Amino acid sequence: MTFSIKLLELLKQARGNWVSGESISAMMGISRSAVWKQVRKLREEGYVVEGSPKKGYTLREAPDRLLPGEIQDGLGTRVFGKGEILHFRETSSTNTIAKDLALRGAAEGLLVLAEEQSGGRGRKGREWHSPPDKGIYFSMLLRPRIAPAEAPKMSLLTAVAVAEAMISAAGVNARIKWPNDVLIGGKKVAGILAEVGAEMDEVQYLVIGIGVNVNNTGFPPELRQQATSLHLETGNPFPRLILLKEILARFEALYEEATRKGFNPCMARWRELSDMLGRNIRVEVPGLVHEGLAEGIGQDGSLLLRDGEGKVHKIVAGDVTFIGGIYGQQKPVG
Amino acid sequence: MTFSIKLLELLKQARGNWVSGESISAMMGISRSAVWKQVRKLREEGYVVEGSPKKGYTLREAPDRLLPGEIQDGLGTRVFGKGEILHFRETSSTNTIAKDLALRGAAEGLLVLAEEQSGGRGRKGREWHSPPDKGIYFSMLLRPRIAPAEAPKMSLLTAVAVAEAMISAAGVNARIKWPNDVLIGGKKVAGILAEVGAEMDEVQYLVIGIGVNVNNTGFPPELRQQATSLHLETGNPFPRLILLKEILARFEALYEEATRKGFNPCMARWRELSDMLGRNIRVEVPGLVHEGLAEGIGQDGSLLLRDGEGKVHKIVAGDVTFIGGIYGQQKPVG
Repeated sequence: MTFSIKLLELLKQARGNWVSGESISAMMGISRSAVWKQVRKLREEGYVVEGSPKKGYTLREAPDRLLPGEIQDGLGTRVFGKGEILHFRETSSTNTIAKDLALRGAAEGLLVLAEEQSGGRGRKGREWHSPPDKGIYFSMLLRPRIAPAEAPKMSLLTAVAVAEAMISAAGVNARIKWPNDVLIGGKKVAGILAEVGAEMDEVQYLVIGIGVNVNNTGFPPELRQQATSLHLETGNPFPRLILLKEILARFEALYEEATRKGFNPCMARWRELSDMLGRNIRVEVPGLVHEGLAEGIGQDGSLLLRDGEGKVHKIVAGDVTFIGGIYGQQKPVG
Repeated sequence: MTFSIKLLELLKQARGNWVSGESISAMMGISRSAVWKQVRKLREEGYVVEGSPKKGYTLREAPDRLLPGEIQDGLGTRVFGKGEILHFRETSSTNTIAKDLALRGAAEGLLVLAEEQSGGRGRKGREWHSPPDKGIYFSMLLRPRIAPAEAPKMSLLTAVAVAEAMISAAGVNARIKWPNDVLIGGKKVAGILAEVGAEMDEVQYLVIGIGVNVNNTGFPPELRQQATSLHLETGNPFPRLILLKEILARFEALYEEATRKGFNPCMARWRELSDMLGRNIRVEVPGLVHEGLAEGIGQDGSLLLRDGEGKVHKIVAGDVTFIGGIYGQQKPVG
């Protein structure tokens, strides 16, 4: 734990009361000028820490930022968010940074967060709109002992964690679209980008990036038909920290369950949360379009589609639209 | 092309004759003191460049090193070795460097070579014995447009390239042991470590590391029963550059063929080169041992093993030994 996080804890424990510089200095085992340096650091991060030569320090306000000290405060996990957390006001892509650290031996549980991404990415190099302070943009580092062929299931598992966190924390009707988009009312509210580093038979690391539209009150014209946010759906801003912690806790619980019992329990929940199974869909894969009934999810996370002639296709990758529209890609009406 | 490689070409074209500093300066479009700097650079790399104030420069001897200028000289490829080549006298692991460059956007065809590796790796974090100047230790960067599930086939393809290069360049009876070891007389002469970076449905990069024992005249005691070299097998040292160029050319040809026609032609050659199919083997996978007949190779590069009860097991990863011995893992006799 860094000094500034320790100081933050002390100030929070005082619940709005003053704590003298002397007692902080004694409790943290650092000099009073070192305490002052840590206060300045918290202020730079956006905390409103009031100081008085006589009374000491008091915490008036925490910033609306996904800061390590705020994330770890009361976090109900054992691994994710408990170790190293990197927080950026702005970066290109949290996944890129996490992959880099993964190659350098970073441990499972690492979080990389940004308030804004200049090069936020979705699947297949698509852009993920990441305006400042509106969303949650972060990446987690995993080192699961699984074969590369199992990796896509980790991505479905993450979609379950995000959808369930949104349902439980914000009371919205979040649903999953294969493979791992999270939608509300047919519009995308969260996306997942999983990237793997592996030998032929063994995963070395898995970086899972999650982007959630939380407090966006609008989107660029080209996204308006297909994107939504918690704010737009509920009419109110939502505290990003609460949702982030809920996602981390649910993710870790599902991940531990999968490690102990395999992916079946999680896949059952994926099916319940999907509003695609049993409906007619169109899947575009490079150079080909499949149409038919979304029948199920295969053992490896692939989509099983039954075409008009009764033949079942196993689809590993592609973009799904409902036949008749609803999903993001439909054209505006009227 | 760097200036020192250009100078090397000029000196080689002179075929042992002298070239004046003035004409080199004119042909390369640089000053005579810049020519001198390049000469010094070549000498540092181990080239014996004789200089005379009156006659100019002549190349007396090229070093036995896998230097970029030597590799590119007469190389019969279009991509691999034609772009960036990094050469290290000593490094930890060429695969680690190549992966790092892959994340930073390096192009397909990049080669990373070392005369010596302090942390040479084989599959599953095993050490790859990499003593100075005895072997070929290098990594290639690929950016194939394939799904992650296809990646293991690229690893089998590489084994075919290495085995065929050894057969054709050195006349040895090289054979392949699943998945991608190359053996002579049951002992390992080359190993392959393929590492992939991928999204769930799309390979981003593939780094293939190849280690070949060429001029080793002995091995540490713990490897002596299972490792061999070209020198040990033929009784003579073998020029590493010739073998390296042959591997690159054969690899690129197989890779292009696979891109155009799929992996079937290459898999057919893999089967011909395997001395395992049709024999009784033992495969150790974590926590389990399979014994039975090595029956074939599956569509995805997995090993098909028929056990005593006639059941066929599809094995994705594991260590193979012949029942009755021959392969590396057998205990020394007597």
